[in-house]
Amino acid sequence: MPHEVLIVTEAELRRVVPLDMASIDTVERAFAALGAGGVVMPPVLSMELPEVHGEVDVKTAWLPGFDGFAVKVSPGFFDNPKLGLPSLNGLMILFAAGTGLVQALFLDNGYLTDVRTAAAGAVAAKYLAPETVSTAGVIGTGVQARLQMRAAHLVRPFERVLVWGRDAKKARACAEDLAAALGVDAVPVDDPARLVAQSQLVVTTTPAREPVLRAAWLHPGLHVTAMGADRSGKNEIEARALAEADLYVADNAAQCARLGELRAAERAGLWTRGLPPELGQVVTGAHPGRTDDAQVTICDLTGTGAQDTAIATHALRATQAAGAGIRIET
Amino acid sequence: MPHEVLIVTEAELRRVVPLDMASIDTVERAFAALGAGGVVMPPVLSMELPEVHGEVDVKTAWLPGFDGFAVKVSPGFFDNPKLGLPSLNGLMILFAAGTGLVQALFLDNGYLTDVRTAAAGAVAAKYLAPETVSTAGVIGTGVQARLQMRAAHLVRPFERVLVWGRDAKKARACAEDLAAALGVDAVPVDDPARLVAQSQLVVTTTPAREPVLRAAWLHPGLHVTAMGADRSGKNEIEARALAEADLYVADNAAQCARLGELRAAERAGLWTRGLPPELGQVVTGAHPGRTDDAQVTICDLTGTGAQDTAIATHALRATQAAGAGIRIET
Repeated sequence: MPHEVLIVTEAELRRVVPLDMASIDTVERAFAALGAGGVVMPPVLSMELPEVHGEVDVKTAWLPGFDGFAVKVSPGFFDNPKLGLPSLNGLMILFAAGTGLVQALFLDNGYLTDVRTAAAGAVAAKYLAPETVSTAGVIGTGVQARLQMRAAHLVRPFERVLVWGRDAKKARACAEDLAAALGVDAVPVDDPARLVAQSQLVVTTTPAREPVLRAAWLHPGLHVTAMGADRSGKNEIEARALAEADLYVADNAAQCARLGELRAAERAGLWTRGLPPELGQVVTGAHPGRTDDAQVTICDLTGTGAQDTAIATHALRATQAAGAGIRIET
Repeated sequence: MPHEVLIVTEAELRRVVPLDMASIDTVERAFAALGAGGVVMPPVLSMELPEVHGEVDVKTAWLPGFDGFAVKVSPGFFDNPKLGLPSLNGLMILFAAGTGLVQALFLDNGYLTDVRTAAAGAVAAKYLAPETVSTAGVIGTGVQARLQMRAAHLVRPFERVLVWGRDAKKARACAEDLAAALGVDAVPVDDPARLVAQSQLVVTTTPAREPVLRAAWLHPGLHVTAMGADRSGKNEIEARALAEADLYVADNAAQCARLGELRAAERAGLWTRGLPPELGQVVTGAHPGRTDDAQVTICDLTGTGAQDTAIATHALRATQAAGAGIRIET
């Protein structure tokens, strides 16, 4: 029996699925579902391709209360830049939650992942950052540095943003882009310790394999979101910071123990409390979030299939509302 | 940087990718690659969805010598027939082997899986059935019963086919279809023991959870391909048949131990030889196949991502050659 599939390109998705409160609300709903239980989210399927310097990840999750579930395929081929091609690509497929029929193909080349990743940062900031954030800081100068600050600004409208990266020129460019996008004072800094000292909210967005944020830099009234580590061996936050913080939460505790900041801390013997609370439990209220403005909080984001399902169902509604996409009978 | 993606519907695929020697040759090449080594094929990602009586499997494999690799998503939602929808659906995505860029989306609703599954049966028959097969038998009366016999006939042009199923009416319909498709004598039979006794090649194509083919029925000069079991708990061949055969080969030994006939045999303590040889090793000659016409051989097919990659790369070439599909810039 033929049915209709909607095909949506990256250009259309950039138009109809901006990083806005609607995207953040959808991703918050995904965390609420994770916190409430009933989510089916198998471990990531990972295929390493050393022969072509590549890797492929497949994520999926089925969430109660969502009309569809996404399967996301994310290839990373790290010799592509030599050919003038981006390293990261991929697409999302949305299936009907009740029948498994293909509903939509999002040829997003990773755009929806960018949005849902930044949106998770906003959810973390909403529940864990101090009520008032006058200065935010970002470590790293890439796409997520920009998107994380734009997302954070929607939930904590800071007046100033500090940017640090290993490459001062890139930090300057990132600060300029943020000043233009947010209309805030945006300052490249040459010392990450100073960035942390002056900020109430810091997001780390690097592929670092050695910590870029030291435990000694933690100070009362600071929230840190670490979103760079998503693969075993990556590590942005000095291990003992996790135990020293008043609250350390994971997007997915088991996954953070494998791929996130928690891995290094457990291996160093500096985290001995077993699985930490999850962001979803903070969203539902099952676990307290920040309870006073002087606390130090850390959130570890490795990326979940639940976020993909959330952003893909949102993208379908947004595409249909805009009359966008190409309809194919199959 | 925009690139072109080819989108191909089930109707077009049925036209440009028939079950023919070209499909069988491609799948044979996949088994040769599995036998030669260098294939990267992670375990199947399986998501069980009891709440909606569904399951979703994701398979992939990267094969040296193939231009692309496929990711296949196969949802099975078993309440769909109540809604007038098929239980099985899904699609394949083909990525460039060297860059990970999306090349094609095959909205096949499982059609390419049907073809590559039947093609694997033909590869098994080519390497394991006696040189001369005058009578073939099929147990089961569904889509694969028909396709397996059509595929087998391409490599062993038998004159007569016997069909047995629990439902005599369906067995009659299947025999009529096979007579029309192959121009052979096709006979529904009421006793599977008689079917096996009279056949040199038997394919079992059922979702049985209790054996439908008894060890006592094995006879000199018989080859059996069991393709029904693809999930833990399914079982078509009586356990001791595996050990009693002169040769028992698996499409993927580790997977057959989890999902195929091997599982029941090992659990019953009736297979104690560890991992069996694989069909790919027989194709490359690394392991002997049938060495005389009187031997009894059994091949256990559970389905591999390597076959999906093979049929998807073949489907891309066939679609391009036919000028079919819809091109989208993304």
